[in-house]
Amino acid sequence: MAYFNRIFKTQPSAPRGYGESYEQWGFPPGTHVDVIRSFQMVDRDRSGFIDAAELQQALSSAYQRFSLRTIRLLIFLFKNPNDPLRIGPKEFAALWSCLGQWRGIFERYDKDRSGKIDLFELRDALYGIGYAIPASILQLLISKYENGSGRRVELNFDSFVECGMILKGLTDKFKEKDQKHGGSATFSYDAFMSTVIPFLVSYD
Amino acid sequence: MAYFNRIFKTQPSAPRGYGESYEQWGFPPGTHVDVIRSFQMVDRDRSGFIDAAELQQALSSAYQRFSLRTIRLLIFLFKNPNDPLRIGPKEFAALWSCLGQWRGIFERYDKDRSGKIDLFELRDALYGIGYAIPASILQLLISKYENGSGRRVELNFDSFVECGMILKGLTDKFKEKDQKHGGSATFSYDAFMSTVIPFLVSYD
Repeated sequence: MAYFNRIFKTQPSAPRGYGESYEQWGFPPGTHVDVIRSFQMVDRDRSGFIDAAELQQALSSAYQRFSLRTIRLLIFLFKNPNDPLRIGPKEFAALWSCLGQWRGIFERYDKDRSGKIDLFELRDALYGIGYAIPASILQLLISKYENGSGRRVELNFDSFVECGMILKGLTDKFKEKDQKHGGSATFSYDAFMSTVIPFLVSYD
Repeated sequence: MAYFNRIFKTQPSAPRGYGESYEQWGFPPGTHVDVIRSFQMVDRDRSGFIDAAELQQALSSAYQRFSLRTIRLLIFLFKNPNDPLRIGPKEFAALWSCLGQWRGIFERYDKDRSGKIDLFELRDALYGIGYAIPASILQLLISKYENGSGRRVELNFDSFVECGMILKGLTDKFKEKDQKHGGSATFSYDAFMSTVIPFLVSYD
């Protein structure tokens, strides 16, 4: 878990060569200039917030095209509690940093450089960041990417992030309730429904 | 719950005026002729199974157009364990009967005949079939239908079925684990993930 916590909490690297004061934008000190430029590029009305379509544009220019489904999941996981449908500079910086780390993991475990991660590489990648997910659970999740051809499922970066974030998000929620670390968690009805439904709602 | 169980387990009504033997198709005795005709209309290759696109065509001709998202959820909830991506005559008959009951509920609770159900009508409809869902949970679920206008969310029949089925499905899963009927359920990690993930996977 220590490594995993580092991945999600690492400080972004220092900015380089950016004249304007980024702090007036609400970015944390030390935010990389590329992150600020990317945010400003899509936040055309200078509102300080970007919505799902704008986030998709920003991330797709840095990586490959992200599906709106993954984008909505990311907004759900990184959102500011006061504004569930848009994200501000602080959330954007955290999200950007996290994606950079996932990209590193993806490249490390995509051993044949195919640009795709299969079931076993996904298992190893998650294990490497502290999550021992049973193969049966991974299989259940990645079955959504089966195209009916019967061929082995392989995930591109977008789907890898989607799967990884779902597994991380649900596992973290489970751990919050597994206070004795005994591998079982007790939920009231309201807590169970309130935990699960947001993961469904993000799938518009 | 007694009423709810009736809704999901009522025998379909008797067939009328249909000459061919429906039993050779695998329909339960007593299946209404409209159900058989609808199935046959979309099962063009006479394989005895229909996929998501074909189910969408069959149901959209009986009701309004159903989204593929709702269709996939219905397949997930009614599927034959041997074939998770298609449904056969038996599952189709059960699904058709269930949708007919939901249509009746929808019309009963859509008091102003607007063709839409709001948050409070949804709460009353679910309560009427034995499910007391807290308003906060309903609000969380129907927030996915918000369009950003700030106006009150209203559900058409498609979305009503989707919401109702999600709430029914998750509540039933919770109840299976709440064996003492005390309002709290304990899940192992595997059971928790295996319960929740299929609801995500159906949202392709």
